[in-house]
Amino acid sequence: MKRYNDNLMKIKVGIVGSTGYTGVVLVRLLLNHPNVEITYLSSEQFEGKDYSLAYPMFYETLDLKCKSVNPKEIAKCCDLVFLATPNDFSKEFIPKLLHYNDSLKIIDLSADLRLIEKIKASKHDYKITYGLSEIYRKEIKHSQIIANPGCYPTSVILALAPLIRNKLVNLNSIIIDSKSGTSGAGKQIKQELHFTEVNESFKPYALAGTHRHIEEIENELLKIVPKSSPKFNVVFSPHLLPINRGILSTIYADPRNTRLTQEDLDNLYKSFYKNEYFVKVFPSQFYPQTKNVRYSNFCHITPLLDQRTNKLILVSAIDNMVKGASGQAVQNMNIMYSFDEKSGLDNLGQLP
Amino acid sequence: MKRYNDNLMKIKVGIVGSTGYTGVVLVRLLLNHPNVEITYLSSEQFEGKDYSLAYPMFYETLDLKCKSVNPKEIAKCCDLVFLATPNDFSKEFIPKLLHYNDSLKIIDLSADLRLIEKIKASKHDYKITYGLSEIYRKEIKHSQIIANPGCYPTSVILALAPLIRNKLVNLNSIIIDSKSGTSGAGKQIKQELHFTEVNESFKPYALAGTHRHIEEIENELLKIVPKSSPKFNVVFSPHLLPINRGILSTIYADPRNTRLTQEDLDNLYKSFYKNEYFVKVFPSQFYPQTKNVRYSNFCHITPLLDQRTNKLILVSAIDNMVKGASGQAVQNMNIMYSFDEKSGLDNLGQLP
Amino acid sequence: MKRYNDNLMKIKVGIVGSTGYTGVVLVRLLLNHPNVEITYLSSEQFEGKDYSLAYPMFYETLDLKCKSVNPKEIAKCCDLVFLATPNDFSKEFIPKLLHYNDSLKIIDLSADLRLIEKIKASKHDYKITYGLSEIYRKEIKHSQIIANPGCYPTSVILALAPLIRNKLVNLNSIIIDSKSGTSGAGKQIKQELHFTEVNESFKPYALAGTHRHIEEIENELLKIVPKSSPKFNVVFSPHLLPINRGILSTIYADPRNTRLTQEDLDNLYKSFYKNEYFVKVFPSQFYPQTKNVRYSNFCHITPLLDQRTNKLILVSAIDNMVKGASGQAVQNMNIMYSFDEKSGLDNLGQLP
Amino acid sequence: MKRYNDNLMKIKVGIVGSTGYTGVVLVRLLLNHPNVEITYLSSEQFEGKDYSLAYPMFYETLDLKCKSVNPKEIAKCCDLVFLATPNDFSKEFIPKLLHYNDSLKIIDLSADLRLIEKIKASKHDYKITYGLSEIYRKEIKHSQIIANPGCYPTSVILALAPLIRNKLVNLNSIIIDSKSGTSGAGKQIKQELHFTEVNESFKPYALAGTHRHIEEIENELLKIVPKSSPKFNVVFSPHLLPINRGILSTIYADPRNTRLTQEDLDNLYKSFYKNEYFVKVFPSQFYPQTKNVRYSNFCHITPLLDQRTNKLILVSAIDNMVKGASGQAVQNMNIMYSFDEKSGLDNLGQLP
Repeated sequence: MKRYNDNLMKIKVGIVGSTGYTGVVLVRLLLNHPNVEITYLSSEQFEGKDYSLAYPMFYETLDLKCKSVNPKEIAKCCDLVFLATPNDFSKEFIPKLLHYNDSLKIIDLSADLRLIEKIKASKHDYKITYGLSEIYRKEIKHSQIIANPGCYPTSVILALAPLIRNKLVNLNSIIIDSKSGTSGAGKQIKQELHFTEVNESFKPYALAGTHRHIEEIENELLKIVPKSSPKFNVVFSPHLLPINRGILSTIYADPRNTRLTQEDLDNLYKSFYKNEYFVKVFPSQFYPQTKNVRYSNFCHITPLLDQRTNKLILVSAIDNMVKGASGQAVQNMNIMYSFDEKSGLDNLGQLP
Repeated sequence: MKRYNDNLMKIKVGIVGSTGYTGVVLVRLLLNHPNVEITYLSSEQFEGKDYSLAYPMFYETLDLKCKSVNPKEIAKCCDLVFLATPNDFSKEFIPKLLHYNDSLKIIDLSADLRLIEKIKASKHDYKITYGLSEIYRKEIKHSQIIANPGCYPTSVILALAPLIRNKLVNLNSIIIDSKSGTSGAGKQIKQELHFTEVNESFKPYALAGTHRHIEEIENELLKIVPKSSPKFNVVFSPHLLPINRGILSTIYADPRNTRLTQEDLDNLYKSFYKNEYFVKVFPSQFYPQTKNVRYSNFCHITPLLDQRTNKLILVSAIDNMVKGASGQAVQNMNIMYSFDEKSGLDNLGQLP
Repeated sequence: MKRYNDNLMKIKVGIVGSTGYTGVVLVRLLLNHPNVEITYLSSEQFEGKDYSLAYPMFYETLDLKCKSVNPKEIAKCCDLVFLATPNDFSKEFIPKLLHYNDSLKIIDLSADLRLIEKIKASKHDYKITYGLSEIYRKEIKHSQIIANPGCYPTSVILALAPLIRNKLVNLNSIIIDSKSGTSGAGKQIKQELHFTEVNESFKPYALAGTHRHIEEIENELLKIVPKSSPKFNVVFSPHLLPINRGILSTIYADPRNTRLTQEDLDNLYKSFYKNEYFVKVFPSQFYPQTKNVRYSNFCHITPLLDQRTNKLILVSAIDNMVKGASGQAVQNMNIMYSFDEKSGLDNLGQLP
Repeated sequence: MKRYNDNLMKIKVGIVGSTGYTGVVLVRLLLNHPNVEITYLSSEQFEGKDYSLAYPMFYETLDLKCKSVNPKEIAKCCDLVFLATPNDFSKEFIPKLLHYNDSLKIIDLSADLRLIEKIKASKHDYKITYGLSEIYRKEIKHSQIIANPGCYPTSVILALAPLIRNKLVNLNSIIIDSKSGTSGAGKQIKQELHFTEVNESFKPYALAGTHRHIEEIENELLKIVPKSSPKFNVVFSPHLLPINRGILSTIYADPRNTRLTQEDLDNLYKSFYKNEYFVKVFPSQFYPQTKNVRYSNFCHITPLLDQRTNKLILVSAIDNMVKGASGQAVQNMNIMYSFDEKSGLDNLGQLP
């Protein structure tokens, strides 16, 4: 990696799995990033073909071909690689990459690294950092390998972190009712993602503790508890929305302190996120809605106290493809290289 | 009301507010009802005009004109009147109707009568029956005035009734996370119901105990508790789905008995609703989804026990315009006149 | 086939391909049909399983199992069979059915028979009738084998027939701009029918004479020309709408007579379809829209004369799954058996 | 207007009608524009309130208040004003602005100026330039007042210009079948734009020469004809799509030269737009679709020759809010000030 003066510094970046949904969003974000040169786009399906064959929107704008998924080639021509690949791929692939370039930085958008602490490659153990930018910024800054968080966990952990870090919530009372658009399920075709099946409908799936994100949520929430705490379980109910983008989580929990007020809550959240550009805390009369974060890297949160029942209600919204995947991955890259954390992420959202 | 032999009996029915959304669904259902003759359609907006001007779908099929909202005329030419009117109308209007015809049967689809027990008209007190058909069938059969339930309450009470009636649930632990399509908000134009605002978005509204249906839900759940119980409060969080029709409620509660099993739950629900045509209890591997009840009078329910957290999770789905409004109103009419309870309601739903 | 008195007559009906989209719509329509007993549902994918496993909406309502696609079994237990199968299946399958039951009536919803006049089975030639009910009612009444029309052709031919039959249009000037919902493409999963791809987008496909329906349209329009006419070609441009159901065709043509007026047009269309329940001709101030025919067997048509350009503009709307497929198939069955042509098809549409 | 060195030059910009849909898109685009300082946002509805009250997405990001629609104030503190106002407003308002600042540049996004050549203010006649950037770049560069084109006309004229400029098309044969998303109708609430009415439906409107954009289309096409030509009329059929953003026009016309080939067409279009960044000509196997231009300033065009009928078919797609309104307005501002024409418009679109 060459070093220029700071605002001219360009790193060479590769994307493995560049024609999937998280891949194409990475391409979009990185094309507008002042410090990035895309040097490698791999795709099994489009190997050897113009990238714009996969996405005609790039026709005559992005003049890159898709290459094979060759770890040696990738390791050689990149400073950093994003793995936008299906689950169960990167665990095998990362050691190969590191074999050819042991200082290669890697941001893995799949679930493979999220529940482990280290990965072994060429006899070394490489530490893995969980890339929830706002919570682990310091660790990310000095990390080589990032496990980029899942979309549901991002929306949930950012909403609960202020309460859990301050021991204000009964950990065994947490109920998470999440609703996600369809792009979170990826580009792969499935009967239940056929337009005619999803459109004009709404449904829950993987209820009662059966969703694969639940362990990630519980592990990460536990890490936020200030003192050591016994493991605890949460209720997590994902639902499928007939929209392309967006996750909205409505979270319920019991306060440990019955004298907590709405004002306390507002102050706590405002203070916890006061230096965070991408997390906005709304006053109790405004609620997040997915359209207000659509295409942006923002997380909108409203913390509420239901006085009639003394329940805490947290509502958070993110774009599952941006803050929930590719945007947060770019944010983590920015942190790792001390770029402006907002670089490439200046889209405020798109209305109407 | 003339009496013919049973399957030829026809009653004269009027619809006040016939060009709103619940009104047009009533018209659709009653046109196919073998025991009904529609004798009066009133509409302020379309008074004096063909009904098909409001809904061109009826052009050359339904040859009726919209009339004025005249209580004397209506009372004279109807055996039963459906009030598909905005809130705060029927409380004033019903005494006028009863003044002209004190045996007129009335099914009020607005919220006006749901929280009161009696209405005074011409010095008489008329008893009001809450028209949740499956729970109050006997009372409905002998009632003159029905308060037709709200859409959210219907989806919630049917899901919780088996547990509450059998004292299996901690009443103070109930959390209701409901999601509704837009037709539930009616035909009236509002900024927040503009297509461009709703489409491709999802949001909560009226959180933390501020929705007007919450009192109806709490009152009615309390009535189901077998012995007298102190009042209790529930958490109720409504959300707006970018679909026309359907409510799905995901409900959380703590069991009172920690040894309750999934099998117990299944048996309880199957048994509670074993004679109910319009309520289907699904086994735990199938979840309700709104498309499966779309345009039908069915309520689909799956009761679940989350063993990791020992929480009860109930999922219910209805079409908010049918079982949540006009369909249940017709069902109540069928009960009142001892018609086949399914008459006019034989639509199984519409797929794909 | 047993004969009872007329309104009790029940025929035995089988559906091959019963779990596809046209299959499930047939099941829905036939379940409410007074003269039909469903005796055979075949499905490759769900063979041996409850039909409600494919469509949970039928859980505890329809107690039928899917059987294998066995021509001998089917031929034996049915008076009439609907083939709701993919293209290139029925041409091979029909001779097998006729081998086992040479008086079996067959309505084929695939494209296989639409461009041929006869099919050979057991040394016999069986005549095929094109099942556009309003145009070929007499022939259908005495036919054994029906080629049920395609969805696009139905919307186009019904709109053009009055003009072409009366030689009022320049045949070489016809331009058809059609827009269809996604259910027309069937249940099979494809990348371009993934929810995330279709939703919030709109696109043309198969332009410039490449769509497989174009030959059907041209053949059938030619048959309507009163005297023998040379073959002619039409422009046909299909587009994909992000909705489940509905086709709207906007058709342009030059009148042969420059003195044709809007009033002439209105009279021509009203007169041509005056006895047709399922075809409604709108006056020029009302245009068809897909929601007004959704879930119904109606075709709405508005004929217009653009006086500034002297172009004829015809707009027609149907539900592609009903009048464009399964509904018209049931209508044809009703004609073949002299049942009430509306039986099973009394759904007026669904609003809102 | 102060002048700095070129890439630091900042102009002061006001937006009248800043809380409507074209207004908010202007705000979004200008916030990311390196040469613009927003100095005035006016809004009748939100006068005196934070801009983020109208659009919570800007909460804590854009710290501006909405001001009154005061021509004196606006004229004083702006170099350029965008009028994102309803029709019939700017014709009266522009003379007031020019009265206070006779060198103020104005880009009017309403239809008020599109059919006139001059506007009188303080005894002067101010020339109006039609702001179709690719066609009138030279004139725009030296203009003070721009009539920004309508969304439908932009999609139509860009598609037809190469043929008309080269006299390759029979002018009296043009048929335009356009389909638009709902944001084109603005933010104002209307019954026919209620979510429940638009969703899951599709319809034509203002057929047979009755749409207000038709005169703009005909005037502007006539101006493109190389030699003087008699006026001609086109068929224009707008339709409403159940999507927020995007216009797709399918245009039919007869070639004047029957020996024109697909290759000629491809070459003509490629050549005509070879220097245009925002217009992409696709080869005949790729068709435009609205999702590929969503949120971008691009226009995608595929010219086709239907050899069976010898008809020309042109398909064009734009985002009605960007190239069809606010984006093209910013492009025109860039041209007027010799900024990089792409400044503020670097969004390539948003997938998935």
